[in-house]
Amino acid sequence: MGWQDYLDREQERFVAELKDFVRIPSVSAKPENIPDVMRAAEWVRDRLTAAGAEHAEVLPTAGHPVVCADWLHAGADKPTILIYGHFDVQPAEPFELWSSPPFEPEVRDGKLWGRGASDDKGGMFIPILAAEAMLKTSGRLPVNVRFFFEGQEEIGSPDLPPFVAANTDRLTADMIFSSDGLQWAPGMPQLVLGLKGLVSLEIILRGPRGDQHSGLYGGGIANPAMALAQVLASLKSTDGTITVEGFYDDVIPLSDADRAAIARVPYDEAEFLAETGAPAPFGEPGYTTRERLWARPTLDVNGLTSGWQGAGTKTVHPAEARAKITCRLVAAQSPEKIFEAIRAHVEAHLPPGVTAEVARLPGRADPFLVPAGHNASATAAAVLEEVYGTAPFQTRVGGSIPVMTTLLDTLGVHAVMFGFSHGDENLHAPDEFFRLDAFRTGQTAYCRLMERLGSG
Amino acid sequence: MGWQDYLDREQERFVAELKDFVRIPSVSAKPENIPDVMRAAEWVRDRLTAAGAEHAEVLPTAGHPVVCADWLHAGADKPTILIYGHFDVQPAEPFELWSSPPFEPEVRDGKLWGRGASDDKGGMFIPILAAEAMLKTSGRLPVNVRFFFEGQEEIGSPDLPPFVAANTDRLTADMIFSSDGLQWAPGMPQLVLGLKGLVSLEIILRGPRGDQHSGLYGGGIANPAMALAQVLASLKSTDGTITVEGFYDDVIPLSDADRAAIARVPYDEAEFLAETGAPAPFGEPGYTTRERLWARPTLDVNGLTSGWQGAGTKTVHPAEARAKITCRLVAAQSPEKIFEAIRAHVEAHLPPGVTAEVARLPGRADPFLVPAGHNASATAAAVLEEVYGTAPFQTRVGGSIPVMTTLLDTLGVHAVMFGFSHGDENLHAPDEFFRLDAFRTGQTAYCRLMERLGSG
Repeated sequence: MGWQDYLDREQERFVAELKDFVRIPSVSAKPENIPDVMRAAEWVRDRLTAAGAEHAEVLPTAGHPVVCADWLHAGADKPTILIYGHFDVQPAEPFELWSSPPFEPEVRDGKLWGRGASDDKGGMFIPILAAEAMLKTSGRLPVNVRFFFEGQEEIGSPDLPPFVAANTDRLTADMIFSSDGLQWAPGMPQLVLGLKGLVSLEIILRGPRGDQHSGLYGGGIANPAMALAQVLASLKSTDGTITVEGFYDDVIPLSDADRAAIARVPYDEAEFLAETGAPAPFGEPGYTTRERLWARPTLDVNGLTSGWQGAGTKTVHPAEARAKITCRLVAAQSPEKIFEAIRAHVEAHLPPGVTAEVARLPGRADPFLVPAGHNASATAAAVLEEVYGTAPFQTRVGGSIPVMTTLLDTLGVHAVMFGFSHGDENLHAPDEFFRLDAFRTGQTAYCRLMERLGSG
Repeated sequence: MGWQDYLDREQERFVAELKDFVRIPSVSAKPENIPDVMRAAEWVRDRLTAAGAEHAEVLPTAGHPVVCADWLHAGADKPTILIYGHFDVQPAEPFELWSSPPFEPEVRDGKLWGRGASDDKGGMFIPILAAEAMLKTSGRLPVNVRFFFEGQEEIGSPDLPPFVAANTDRLTADMIFSSDGLQWAPGMPQLVLGLKGLVSLEIILRGPRGDQHSGLYGGGIANPAMALAQVLASLKSTDGTITVEGFYDDVIPLSDADRAAIARVPYDEAEFLAETGAPAPFGEPGYTTRERLWARPTLDVNGLTSGWQGAGTKTVHPAEARAKITCRLVAAQSPEKIFEAIRAHVEAHLPPGVTAEVARLPGRADPFLVPAGHNASATAAAVLEEVYGTAPFQTRVGGSIPVMTTLLDTLGVHAVMFGFSHGDENLHAPDEFFRLDAFRTGQTAYCRLMERLGSG
């Protein structure tokens, strides 16, 4: 029996096991669920062992644990791949908005409903099952495989960088595949080539000691709220160009090929506007909306705070004004250099009569861009085309996934997102679900991926 | 016996009566004190009658009452003056910060301590006592006098405009004097020639329907917080000049005489900065700080609200951003014209991708400027010079007193502030006090004022 038949035969059991997995409320954000995250880790460890993986272990970090395992008998001439995923889940609140309880998974309409079904329990279970199918039918895998599953992705993986740095011997690999990832749409595969980086900061302008009477002092001293507006306006022109000196210096320009690949991806502007309710698209001139979203850096004000914010009028002259800012960065921008550029810009453009503080805030990621011709990506693309019958779109993501850059920084390997969830599966919302046909497709895809990589 | 001797002889009783008056907690802002405001009105009515005034009456409004009285037997060739004041007081909270209870007045160090002692119970009692002294000693007053005391000044006199409009027969006068007013400092009189007007508004910019993920949508749609910053920055240049088209059109320029009068008033920049804690003075070029504070219009942001305002970072793209704005206006600017100018300016300078709403807020006053050579002011100045032994400073105030413009609009008469409180008397704060020597000086000043006006 080949792995295909094994997968077909065992599929019902796999779904039942995935339901067991989803039943564990491994919410990493909530202290009361710490034992559940540990239970999920133990479930993963045991399931890896049952699949035929070796050295399956729950390993401690300063926070939630990690599970590692491997199967390294393919031979020294075969590549070693690292498969990443996470067994923690988002909080399920508000419970009352769920059609069925989040931790009592149900199958309806060919979908498994429950918190974490799609993100990422279903996703991370796929490569375990693919390995099991091959190990149980042929006794071996075509490549050397390491498994690396974590329990703190949904809280930003705070303990992962030191863990990865201290465990490179367990993690070193020629290629990395993340089971935590999305396909473009049912039947439409994608290969995510880029993620944006992130830098977070706050600009605080201060004037008088406390809020002052606008009649007694207005006009005689500088108003920090107005000064903040002037400083912010100096960061970005009204046409959408960021005007911070040096901001674009390190941006890798989009090639014609990049732009053509982006243009191939379906884009419906009316749908884009309907999603947000914005009156019109808007952004940096010279780029399409999608290019701006995926491949151009941004500078966004996340929040403004100053003075009187209640109902009606209060004739105060505020003591201070604050703006929270995040920049989404693209390769090869550095969060530290961009912060420094903004800090220097604010200092250079500060109106008289106020003092400025520009402070880093938590929230940092390097941009991530798969190099052109990257081997693992090319293989993943070939597998997706084979399995779906259509070549994957080459896409990018405006968001940041810090673990991708942690792995790149420490192991020197660009991870390939090879996951089978979809953006419409209510990933961080009530009624999360996972498509069971994608669950099955993913298992085939991981088997073919290992075959292709092993036959190279 | 002349009025001077009468005042000397009765002073102790007057202070005791003022204490009775202060004992009534006539806090107009608090519903539970509605009966106390009425009690204060009745106290004033009875005290006016006791002083010899006629037709003393408590008159209803839609809110707290008004007290009117008159003495109109000076003859048709003598001017009629209207004396204004208020018997309601600010809330006294926080009680624990008072050295003695706010409604249990005490005399210490030649001062009467208690809520309302200075603002305006002590102030409004002065002209009543001056009239009593003259009526009890000579049986007459040198001028015709109307008294007009209200019970809602501390909540913005909402019911006063309709009351004044409906009662012009009771209020019509050749001159108006307000007992609610300040002298510059002990021993240093002032004549307030100008008050600023006020217009209040809010600018609300809207983008997407709700807050959006800055990674998924940043760069693709306009950010209302950044757009608001750009709009606000377009209202005022970084040198302090207001750049709203037409903003300064109706401003009456300062004459050389105006500037000289302002320059004569003591000004200590270090003290000004120490009061506010601002790092430096700042404002419209071409004017001194005091000219800006007193005689130039302002545009101040009172508050900013948008998106995430909590601790740390939230990578949101805000749905909307709001700025509250007040402009302090000078003669002959109109709140309505200025609002319209700002509304049109925002519309003309709105960056793409957002919608704008510019809304009036409550809080409106016309600017007030006593015309040069104004008769009542000249007489008041002469009396102050006589009583204090030094000519009054000619000052202006950055704040607004709506009742002054209500009286001007309805009766066509510029009121003269002729009050004897001082800015350091904790007017709206714990430990309010009134200087008893100023209480006595004020009585003499009102008698001399009436004499001068009657001998003209």
